[in-house]
Amino acid sequence: MGSPSTATRVTARRRRAAPAPATRYDRRLAEILVHATEVFCKKGYEGASMRDLARASGMSLAGLYYYFESKERLLFLIQKHTFTTIVQGLKARLEGVSDSEERIRIFILNHLEYFLANQAAMKVLSHEAEALKNGFASEVAAIKREYYRICVGLLDKLKSDRGLQFQTRIAVLSLFGMMNWIYTWHNPRVDADAESIAGEMGDVFLRGVMAGGKGRRDGR
Amino acid sequence: MGSPSTATRVTARRRRAAPAPATRYDRRLAEILVHATEVFCKKGYEGASMRDLARASGMSLAGLYYYFESKERLLFLIQKHTFTTIVQGLKARLEGVSDSEERIRIFILNHLEYFLANQAAMKVLSHEAEALKNGFASEVAAIKREYYRICVGLLDKLKSDRGLQFQTRIAVLSLFGMMNWIYTWHNPRVDADAESIAGEMGDVFLRGVMAGGKGRRDGR
Repeated sequence: MGSPSTATRVTARRRRAAPAPATRYDRRLAEILVHATEVFCKKGYEGASMRDLARASGMSLAGLYYYFESKERLLFLIQKHTFTTIVQGLKARLEGVSDSEERIRIFILNHLEYFLANQAAMKVLSHEAEALKNGFASEVAAIKREYYRICVGLLDKLKSDRGLQFQTRIAVLSLFGMMNWIYTWHNPRVDADAESIAGEMGDVFLRGVMAGGKGRRDGR
Repeated sequence: MGSPSTATRVTARRRRAAPAPATRYDRRLAEILVHATEVFCKKGYEGASMRDLARASGMSLAGLYYYFESKERLLFLIQKHTFTTIVQGLKARLEGVSDSEERIRIFILNHLEYFLANQAAMKVLSHEAEALKNGFASEVAAIKREYYRICVGLLDKLKSDRGLQFQTRIAVLSLFGMMNWIYTWHNPRVDADAESIAGEMGDVFLRGVMAGGKGRRDGR
C-alpha cells in the first residue's frame, strides 16, 4: 500500500539490517534455532523435551547436546538472537533520521516487519519471557531493557519537541501491546502487510499522543 | 485517581456485574478453577498434569476427575468462565449509556479491571488460546467472537456518530493489544490502578481514532 519510493527505501533498510551467519557452524546453529523455535511454539517450553528438539532439527540427541548443552540455553539463544536482530535493525534504520515523529514511525515499522516475518519466534518470546533464570535471564533482560529505553527516548523526544504531555511509560507499553498482540491475529490472507499496518497503527498511536497537546483530559 | 463520584459509580457497576456462585458444588468448582488457573499459569497447559492440578486444589486425583473428567475440560471452563464474566459485566455497565465515546471508555475500563484483578487467568487465556479442540474450542470461540463484535459495534457507532474514517479491524485489534499486553508489565507497586490506566489508554486510543477526522494520513 505504500508508494514505490517508500517500498524501495524500506527494502534498502531491511537489507542493511540482516547480516548473514558467517561460518558453517553459525549457519547450522541458526537452522537449529529456527527448528527449536517451532517446537517451543507448538509445545511450550515446559512441554518440549531435548528429544523433541533433536528430532525437529534432524539431529541425534548427542549432536544437539554438542551444540547447546541444555534446553534453557536454546531458549536463551532464540531470545538473544531475536532481540539483538531487532535492536540492530532499528539502529541502522534510525541513522540520519532526525524528525521525532518519523523516528517513531520507523520504530513501529521495524518492529512489525520483524514480528510478521518471525511469528513463531514472537510467540515463544511472549510466552516464555519468564522461563529463563539467572545469567541467561539477565543477559536477555539487558537487551530488552535497551530496546524499551530506545522507545522511551523516542517518545520523550517527541514530547519535548512538540510540547506534549502524556505518561511515557503507559504510552510506550500501550504501543508495545498494540504491536506485539499482532501475533495472535494477523492472517496474511486477510490482513495487510507490515508496512500498511505500521502506517495505520502509527496514525492511531501518534495522533493519540499528539492530539492531547499540553494537557490531558481528566481520567474518566 | 478518579473523582469520588466516579469511583462510587464504578463500584456500583462492578457490584452489579459479579454474581456469586449458587450452590456448594458451584462454589467448590469455582475454587478449583482458581487453583487450576494458577497451575496452568506457572507450568503451561502442556506442562501441567492432572496430578499437579489435584495437588494444588487439595484434592485426590479421583476427586478431580469426578468434577472435571479431563485437563482439557478444566481449561475450557476457565476460558468460558472468564469470557462470560467479562461480557456479562460489560453488558450490565453499558445499559442506559448512549454516548458512543463514553461507551468505549466503559469497554476499556471493564476489560482492564477484570484483567488486573485476574492476571493469572489472563495469562492462561493468552497463552493457551489454541490448546482447546473441537466442541470446547468452538464454544469458547463463540463467546470471544461475541465480545470482539461488541467492540466492533462500539467503534463503528463512534465512526458513524462522528463521521470518522479508520480501519475498524486494525483499531479494535490495536485496542485489544494495548489492553491485553498489560499482563506482561503491570506492577501494582509502581503502576496506577485499572481506572487510571483505562483513562490514559482511553485518551490515547480515542484521540488517535478521532483526530483523523474524515481522512487519514497516507500510510508512511
